[in-house]
Amino acid sequence: MEDIVKLSLLYDFYGALLTEKQREYFELHYFNDLSLNEIAQHFNVTRQGVFDIIHRSLEFLKQCEEKLGLVERYLKQKKVLERIKSQLEEIRPYINSEGSGILERAIRDLEKLVKEGWE
Amino acid sequence: MEDIVKLSLLYDFYGALLTEKQREYFELHYFNDLSLNEIAQHFNVTRQGVFDIIHRSLEFLKQCEEKLGLVERYLKQKKVLERIKSQLEEIRPYINSEGSGILERAIRDLEKLVKEGWE
Repeated sequence: MEDIVKLSLLYDFYGALLTEKQREYFELHYFNDLSLNEIAQHFNVTRQGVFDIIHRSLEFLKQCEEKLGLVERYLKQKKVLERIKSQLEEIRPYINSEGSGILERAIRDLEKLVKEGWE
Repeated sequence: MEDIVKLSLLYDFYGALLTEKQREYFELHYFNDLSLNEIAQHFNVTRQGVFDIIHRSLEFLKQCEEKLGLVERYLKQKKVLERIKSQLEEIRPYINSEGSGILERAIRDLEKLVKEGWE
């Protein structure tokens, strides 16, 4: 998994437990691609101060995942959902027209569920 | 939703963020049905002390859910999964024998996924 994807997931799941300031610095650095120096200048604080806050935030998010494992659980569920979706797509040739409407609805619902966690 | 089910879900999702002592008191009280007095006697502490710890633990779990909403997200997903499962069961009469093996596998996988979060 790419680092930024992992970071986004950690932030998506646990970010609301950070303080407003931590979230602000974290987002500017990781999602808006601002350097520590740029953030320091913008808020008129030291680069070290920015580094500390972002570093502690990241460690906190990682600790949350270590203890709760909800991102890992989500990723596992996502894999199972994708497998079920493939199975349903495999069924298409074996179903008659009466049933295919229900099948397509189920596939659409599954697709939505797989995507949801990423939005 | 019954209170004990809600409590179990909160505890299942966020309980690992509590301290060991908080978890011990919380489990004894809510899941093993011990009274505050019984816990106090067992650990040779005051009833008020036990109450404070359990009360703070519960408030903490509720705050986690208020901020992260992961239990609510899980319950919504569970509903969708159950709906998809019903749709797949509806398809049974419209599928031929070649496809039914795949369909039954998909239904079993979905069942497992729905149950998983409750174990």
